Amino acid sequence: MRKLFQEDLHNLGGQLTDIAVLVAEAMEKAYRSFESADVQLAEEVIAADARIDSMQHDLDEKAIELLALQGPVASDLRLVVGALRMSTSLERMGDLARHIAQLTRLRYPDTVSPEPLVPVYREMAQMDVSLAQKLVQLLETREVSLLSEIYALNEAINELHAGIFTTIASPTWEASAASTADATLASRFFERFGDHGVSVAKKVHYLETGEWEAEPAV
Amino acid sequence: MRKLFQEDLHNLGGQLTDIAVLVAEAMEKAYRSFESADVQLAEEVIAADARIDSMQHDLDEKAIELLALQGPVASDLRLVVGALRMSTSLERMGDLARHIAQLTRLRYPDTVSPEPLVPVYREMAQMDVSLAQKLVQLLETREVSLLSEIYALNEAINELHAGIFTTIASPTWEASAASTADATLASRFFERFGDHGVSVAKKVHYLETGEWEAEPAV
Repeated sequence: MRKLFQEDLHNLGGQLTDIAVLVAEAMEKAYRSFESADVQLAEEVIAADARIDSMQHDLDEKAIELLALQGPVASDLRLVVGALRMSTSLERMGDLARHIAQLTRLRYPDTVSPEPLVPVYREMAQMDVSLAQKLVQLLETREVSLLSEIYALNEAINELHAGIFTTIASPTWEASAASTADATLASRFFERFGDHGVSVAKKVHYLETGEWEAEPAV
Repeated sequence: MRKLFQEDLHNLGGQLTDIAVLVAEAMEKAYRSFESADVQLAEEVIAADARIDSMQHDLDEKAIELLALQGPVASDLRLVVGALRMSTSLERMGDLARHIAQLTRLRYPDTVSPEPLVPVYREMAQMDVSLAQKLVQLLETREVSLLSEIYALNEAINELHAGIFTTIASPTWEASAASTADATLASRFFERFGDHGVSVAKKVHYLETGEWEAEPAV
């Protein structure tokens, strides 16, 4: 029984990792569609989000079944509850990748990003993808040294996000109001993706070390 | 034992309601501060958010303790897991009220909202507050007839949100780019508040009826 339960816990971790892999892919593709106004790729990301949602649903059902059948306590219980929380954050990351793809589709055949922000979004998106890939590694290996890399990436994303508002407020900014609104939302989506990634990382941290750091205020 | 457990479940529901009351208050005050550039009131909302966070933390600990000590199954288990999920959504609603207050503080002594949007934000915020108050009632009474009112409010908020982008894109829009960015973010915060409210309502719906509607795609 005990051995089976450990196997179930292990499988739950595997399901989380599988979702994280799809989330990293979704953001990578969402950004490519965003930069090049590739509406077909955007549609692909939008359609693929349903798969992430259904995987989250399956994981949650599995976790609830584990709680019901095994009645875990102590650290096993925290692992299962932690998995429920992490799946919610990962699902939100998938939604944010979808939002980027939806902005792309909305503005097609134009690109969403005003020219001066193209390199900034590129950097934010690359960091988002890298952060998601490190989450995959973290979920696979529970290697806590990855945590500081994830937190540092999120800090850097937050700085780029703040920088975008400085650019928008500068006298040289010439984009239309509609384009300014899009640029603001896109930046917010890239930034929130990193925040949710940090939420997942902090839960792994807590589960591995028993030390809880408060959620970042975002 | 069984009776005590029912009492614990009841208390969990009470804790959720208490958080929802604070969330409704937070949005009401956040909006007042936003409309009148009342930085003192904004500071109050920002400070009060820590209380919501700590109540969420307490509720979550209580729920995990219940899972550990009572090993609930079937509908009781779903109630406890549902409470964990609802507390997360309520906590996010508190964050969004805080974000509105933070925008207010950032632009003080100016108001955040460009003149043409003042009545739109007022309506969105009133609907947000009303939605949160109906959530309080729903959590207290489990009266499912409230659900359609909550969903309708959220639909109306979404329409106002979409309308803001139409206004921003119109030729008569004259606000600065920085102000356009603020206006976009504020609208997004008011809109997300409603979405999270709907998430809570849908969980109550599911727990009461066993019928699950998928999360709204937002």
